[in-house]
Amino acid sequence: MNGRILVINPNSTQAVTDGLSDALSAFRTPGGPAIDCVTLAEGPPGIESQRHVDGVVQPLCALIGRETADAYVIACYSDPGLHAARETTDRPVLGISECGLLTACTLGERIGVISILATSIPRHLRAIRQMGLWERMAGDRALGLGVVELADRDRVFARMVDVGRQLIDLDGADVLTLGCAGMAYLREDLQEAVGAPVVDPAQAAVTMALGRVLLDRSAQSPPGALRATAG
Amino acid sequence: MNGRILVINPNSTQAVTDGLSDALSAFRTPGGPAIDCVTLAEGPPGIESQRHVDGVVQPLCALIGRETADAYVIACYSDPGLHAARETTDRPVLGISECGLLTACTLGERIGVISILATSIPRHLRAIRQMGLWERMAGDRALGLGVVELADRDRVFARMVDVGRQLIDLDGADVLTLGCAGMAYLREDLQEAVGAPVVDPAQAAVTMALGRVLLDRSAQSPPGALRATAG
Amino acid sequence: MNGRILVINPNSTQAVTDGLSDALSAFRTPGGPAIDCVTLAEGPPGIESQRHVDGVVQPLCALIGRETADAYVIACYSDPGLHAARETTDRPVLGISECGLLTACTLGERIGVISILATSIPRHLRAIRQMGLWERMAGDRALGLGVVELADRDRVFARMVDVGRQLIDLDGADVLTLGCAGMAYLREDLQEAVGAPVVDPAQAAVTMALGRVLLDRSAQSPPGALRATAG
Amino acid sequence: MNGRILVINPNSTQAVTDGLSDALSAFRTPGGPAIDCVTLAEGPPGIESQRHVDGVVQPLCALIGRETADAYVIACYSDPGLHAARETTDRPVLGISECGLLTACTLGERIGVISILATSIPRHLRAIRQMGLWERMAGDRALGLGVVELADRDRVFARMVDVGRQLIDLDGADVLTLGCAGMAYLREDLQEAVGAPVVDPAQAAVTMALGRVLLDRSAQSPPGALRATAG
Amino acid sequence: MNGRILVINPNSTQAVTDGLSDALSAFRTPGGPAIDCVTLAEGPPGIESQRHVDGVVQPLCALIGRETADAYVIACYSDPGLHAARETTDRPVLGISECGLLTACTLGERIGVISILATSIPRHLRAIRQMGLWERMAGDRALGLGVVELADRDRVFARMVDVGRQLIDLDGADVLTLGCAGMAYLREDLQEAVGAPVVDPAQAAVTMALGRVLLDRSAQSPPGALRATAG
Amino acid sequence: MNGRILVINPNSTQAVTDGLSDALSAFRTPGGPAIDCVTLAEGPPGIESQRHVDGVVQPLCALIGRETADAYVIACYSDPGLHAARETTDRPVLGISECGLLTACTLGERIGVISILATSIPRHLRAIRQMGLWERMAGDRALGLGVVELADRDRVFARMVDVGRQLIDLDGADVLTLGCAGMAYLREDLQEAVGAPVVDPAQAAVTMALGRVLLDRSAQSPPGALRATAG
Repeated sequence: MNGRILVINPNSTQAVTDGLSDALSAFRTPGGPAIDCVTLAEGPPGIESQRHVDGVVQPLCALIGRETADAYVIACYSDPGLHAARETTDRPVLGISECGLLTACTLGERIGVISILATSIPRHLRAIRQMGLWERMAGDRALGLGVVELADRDRVFARMVDVGRQLIDLDGADVLTLGCAGMAYLREDLQEAVGAPVVDPAQAAVTMALGRVLLDRSAQSPPGALRATAG
Repeated sequence: MNGRILVINPNSTQAVTDGLSDALSAFRTPGGPAIDCVTLAEGPPGIESQRHVDGVVQPLCALIGRETADAYVIACYSDPGLHAARETTDRPVLGISECGLLTACTLGERIGVISILATSIPRHLRAIRQMGLWERMAGDRALGLGVVELADRDRVFARMVDVGRQLIDLDGADVLTLGCAGMAYLREDLQEAVGAPVVDPAQAAVTMALGRVLLDRSAQSPPGALRATAG
Repeated sequence: MNGRILVINPNSTQAVTDGLSDALSAFRTPGGPAIDCVTLAEGPPGIESQRHVDGVVQPLCALIGRETADAYVIACYSDPGLHAARETTDRPVLGISECGLLTACTLGERIGVISILATSIPRHLRAIRQMGLWERMAGDRALGLGVVELADRDRVFARMVDVGRQLIDLDGADVLTLGCAGMAYLREDLQEAVGAPVVDPAQAAVTMALGRVLLDRSAQSPPGALRATAG
Repeated sequence: MNGRILVINPNSTQAVTDGLSDALSAFRTPGGPAIDCVTLAEGPPGIESQRHVDGVVQPLCALIGRETADAYVIACYSDPGLHAARETTDRPVLGISECGLLTACTLGERIGVISILATSIPRHLRAIRQMGLWERMAGDRALGLGVVELADRDRVFARMVDVGRQLIDLDGADVLTLGCAGMAYLREDLQEAVGAPVVDPAQAAVTMALGRVLLDRSAQSPPGALRATAG
Repeated sequence: MNGRILVINPNSTQAVTDGLSDALSAFRTPGGPAIDCVTLAEGPPGIESQRHVDGVVQPLCALIGRETADAYVIACYSDPGLHAARETTDRPVLGISECGLLTACTLGERIGVISILATSIPRHLRAIRQMGLWERMAGDRALGLGVVELADRDRVFARMVDVGRQLIDLDGADVLTLGCAGMAYLREDLQEAVGAPVVDPAQAAVTMALGRVLLDRSAQSPPGALRATAG
Repeated sequence: MNGRILVINPNSTQAVTDGLSDALSAFRTPGGPAIDCVTLAEGPPGIESQRHVDGVVQPLCALIGRETADAYVIACYSDPGLHAARETTDRPVLGISECGLLTACTLGERIGVISILATSIPRHLRAIRQMGLWERMAGDRALGLGVVELADRDRVFARMVDVGRQLIDLDGADVLTLGCAGMAYLREDLQEAVGAPVVDPAQAAVTMALGRVLLDRSAQSPPGALRATAG
């Protein structure tokens, strides 16, 4: 047993959780922690408003309270309950929005966010200002599609390319971040289509969680156990 | 073979490279990439000035050019040659300063940096402004010890606790970042002593590199190969 | 009937609501709207954590849904549910933290916040960055007293004067804001003691609510009805 | 007698003062302070340059010196003499630009300003930076009409709708502020036409002044006099 | 005749003008423009308030209107009338505060300002925010001496060294700017005493004015006239 | 002999150096310092990448070490080696990018930069953030021409006018800065064509260098020698 990262989809749509799990398969290694994706049964089908965001905090914290893990990832681009969850457990809790934006800072100078709904943009702007990352922001543009409509791959992809190009050409973005947990399966294709790096925020958050888990579990191991191979 | 992360110590002191390698052992897993630490022979014994920083860029880029890896980490808190290296290779290149600061943003609101030399602080301030992270900065204070003096563990540790407490009590920091690649072995003890999270920047950068390598190598594998264990 | 401002104390301590109501009596005028203060029964005795903040959002929105008013004021310095409430009603909703800080901007260049608990400060810093007001921030210092301890007037006042002077002398504040809904009764005395303007955030929010209600109700009235006295 | 707010139109055009007075009628209540609007006889017909702004400071301060009031509002979007006036009297002095922008912060994330003249925009940008509100700024666009041309309602309104839509669609504004004291009569219609909240800065400033006057006069009254109706 | 820079002391104290002229003698060269220092007769003995600042704008603009020059320097650290003067003439107008701060940016990372009066600090903070230079600001501390007291060299100097050291040691400044036009004669001694570069703002502004005049006069000369010595 | 300013073109193209020398002729006066322009033989033909920037630092510092001067100007818009050079000599070293941007702050509110290559823009954005000048930035747009193509005056000029107008009309710039050391000969024509001030960064840097040299040499002269003509 090598530890466990619990990735919580705070909406109740199992297909999103399944897509997440698939998008995170790269981070599952023989010696590394399990990466388990769970659906928050109490969540709405999609998190589309601030009220949805705030509404999942209590069940999400309850879930964290009853599910043991070495690290938790909140897999919704609004980072619902991020700071409340950090009070709930002394294990690391990562939000995919914060990790997506921070990771994008290593890939470009100005970040463009592809959101699903226009109504989410003010919420995203508050988050970017809250993080103190305003100077790295190029723009945030919406697909204008609901979470459930994301199943039509071709339609979604064509729209993402359009929006991505606007962020690059009109807003000056040189790196894009997907503003949703459910678009990871299009990341590589989008990257190729627009010619700029694209960050999937759930992958970014699981990366950070993975680092914390490896580090913490190493500290608990007998010293030097894994160090024999050091370069 | 599972890929390779090359961690480059751009100063020529092998003991620093050895310490780095030890500090990164947690990130070596059976199924994960090798994490190899190398010393830049052309570097100075310690990078203590802007001229040192700029002076290692060419040999560092040359080293990247001749050493194949899936990702590179520049393991000096001044991130020497970070953007030049990114022009040199199409593989990911991470700087420990940028990754240390970005990771600290997930652990607290205001970052305190423990530097070795006071003369490095203006360089660090430029870097923080360059990253657009000024609003997250609490302060940067120096140990006032040379890189070579870092061998005296007790003296270094006592001074780090002092400086860490000043950053917390006087400057308002709630998370600390080590402003050097050679202090990782004291991270956990310092964290306990000051009661605030402490980020080792090399560990932060290797975490980000690890995520990229896992993601990129997965994209090259036959689909689903590693996905059987998905939660 | 001249309209109604509903001031919601999201903690369940009736004494705080009563104190609020008293602190807002100045804003009750014969021709103006009623200013009714209510206690959120579902709230905790005091809002002392992010989890408390997020936990009151649903009952608070429910209360707004069932209580008719011309404007709502959320009377907790963490502005719980502010943006969710704005989605819940098309009437104005004001947060006392945002209004306290914005009003302070008309009274000085750099704002010092007197908080009750040190653990609230990171939450306040996130709020100030979220509002984009970082350049106006001098500091945030805590009394180190629990909400329930606020009953001991002399002890609280002495500590507020100490903290206020530190904000002015050490952090450069030239205007103070009370970081709690329950300290208004000390505002004037504190102002006199420290020699700088002090903003009570609930008074600031009710002021803004009052303006909106007067304006909106006027728009619904027959034109000119109240205009006879115009200068 | 319930106190007096003196609203000073620092240009010499009485029609602007009359329009102001009409736009502020909502704030006149039976029990509240008088809101008297006066014209600064020494002002230019319109304040259209920095030199105009600076030129009215002395007569404006003189007027404040000879006219007793409980609060003063400087009703020009350049806030002429705001800080000089604050040195002149110990009564509150509010500027309509500062209050308009601060109030807009409670209605949206990014502010668009509708100015009359393009030559005023650099002055407005300086003011927004001076207030530390740059991160809340979406854009500032001009009608391209002179102050005296504002009489042609239809022409002005059509142009305001155009400019408002540009601020929203091109610059990302989600709240608009009128960059002049003379456009209040179009506020509600504009709000409806563009589908975003519109702030009249004079109304915003009188709101803040009203709150201060009520609070200050209450402090001078026998305690509890108005508190009998508290909720 | 090689052009003329007119340096205007907007206070009426001739001794300040004489000191200015002396402090600027280095910039007078045989082939360069005359640097004439004049006293604004209409100014107050010292500019010590915002009202003083605004009060000199009209006579200052009038003086610029009647005195022909190739460039104007407004030699008061509050930059009175800077933007009004730029509307008055199409010749360059430089403010000593703006030029002092901008020049300091080439000498250090964080600027400390030595002011004469504590009451000037809020005005200076507004100016720094207005310039968008907040991230370069370390602090602003006052001597606590009136303009007329500046004659006692020893007292002034001892106090400047104290304040300068506080700016460096407590606020993190690595370059100092003199917040007054009358302290230039102590610049070099202060620089030596505190061990950090010290900028006299009038010298900084005359430098910029000199560059503009040389460039503009060259454009009017027959081409190549002065180019014979080009390296 | 009146001192010497050494202007270093860090690319190896002598024609650029010659153009520089011509563009700086205005600053050569009979009594002032020599302004000598030299070519860095070790530099690339044009500095077009971060690697080029970092690659010239060592030979540039070596050149500074062997060439005596009273001040040095690094005449490439990427300011290569600026901070390393400042460690190399105790004489002033100015970068043309920093001086161009700082000087532009005296000529407008928002700066537009005309770059040669699109690939330089991320580098320029890092520099602007590093300087803390983000709030003054309107945009940075590229000509899309290589350094060597700059010889075709008409083509370059037509493109500069296009790009300059975009910066003004689309990005809101009211002052332009040339993002290269080799475009000075078009500055005045561009200024006239676009109707906004245009700053040549090399002229801006030599201006600042000139001020420093005059001041420093004066300090070494017998007191009063040049002061006889003081106004």
